[in-house]
Amino acid sequence: MKIKLLVVGKTSSLNLQTLINDYVKRINHYMKFEIIMINNSKLKKINPLELKKIEGNNILKKINEKDLVFLLDEKGESYTSLEFSNFIKKNIITRSKDIVFVIGGAQGFSKDLYNRCNSKISFSKMTTSHQLIRLFMTEQLYRAFTIINNNPYHNE
Amino acid sequence: MKIKLLVVGKTSSLNLQTLINDYVKRINHYMKFEIIMINNSKLKKINPLELKKIEGNNILKKINEKDLVFLLDEKGESYTSLEFSNFIKKNIITRSKDIVFVIGGAQGFSKDLYNRCNSKISFSKMTTSHQLIRLFMTEQLYRAFTIINNNPYHNE
Repeated sequence: MKIKLLVVGKTSSLNLQTLINDYVKRINHYMKFEIIMINNSKLKKINPLELKKIEGNNILKKINEKDLVFLLDEKGESYTSLEFSNFIKKNIITRSKDIVFVIGGAQGFSKDLYNRCNSKISFSKMTTSHQLIRLFMTEQLYRAFTIINNNPYHNE
Repeated sequence: MKIKLLVVGKTSSLNLQTLINDYVKRINHYMKFEIIMINNSKLKKINPLELKKIEGNNILKKINEKDLVFLLDEKGESYTSLEFSNFIKKNIITRSKDIVFVIGGAQGFSKDLYNRCNSKISFSKMTTSHQLIRLFMTEQLYRAFTIINNNPYHNE
């Protein structure tokens, strides 16, 4: 099993990508983890509602039937880092399915994606750019694995 | 008046610093804003409790008597981006004092700092590295000014 992070659109800055790559590498010491980018470069000049639907369908194509799907959504459930590590641990131990986290595009998630997901997770009540949240997500996932494995990184 | 962000220790990565600098520049289109780094490079090999106290005192030296001081603390009040922009607006409009946000070191805040602050703000229930939160904070402050000024950036 592995963990995947689906994101919409290229990471805009090389500086950001480099920071994210560092955490991806660190997470892979614990578990297979990859970020999959859904290309949206050909979807300019489409109205926001239509765009949301198309992006949603493109995301769904990358999700397998058995995957556990969690959307990063401001209105989702919020966790402390410790609770989030328990959430990861529980989903790893009790199931043999791949875990898929999804960060939506600037327009948010389509209805079909909301219907497909297992649950929604909120990292903050605040809205962050759909670019920066990639960095926070990977850092938090890395933090979760250090907590699960009792490695020094997180101070409670 | 201006807004200051006090942080403990050098920003560890040039990639991160570059991303932060971009938002600092953007915020300065709206209001004078600067990040002030409290040097802690000479404070190695000190026990965590002592370190927290010394860092706290060094932070307090950078705070003026009239400053409005807000600590970024997981146990503080949480806001949506819209609420945070209202918080900024209210503190800018109704007072002529400088606003100081403080991001603590890895050990958190000293008791004296908790006593001095006007209130605590939580960006997330999750713990983020005291490095990455600098980026999160500056993006959120930039977002707040775009909301206050009705500029396109934030999608509600």
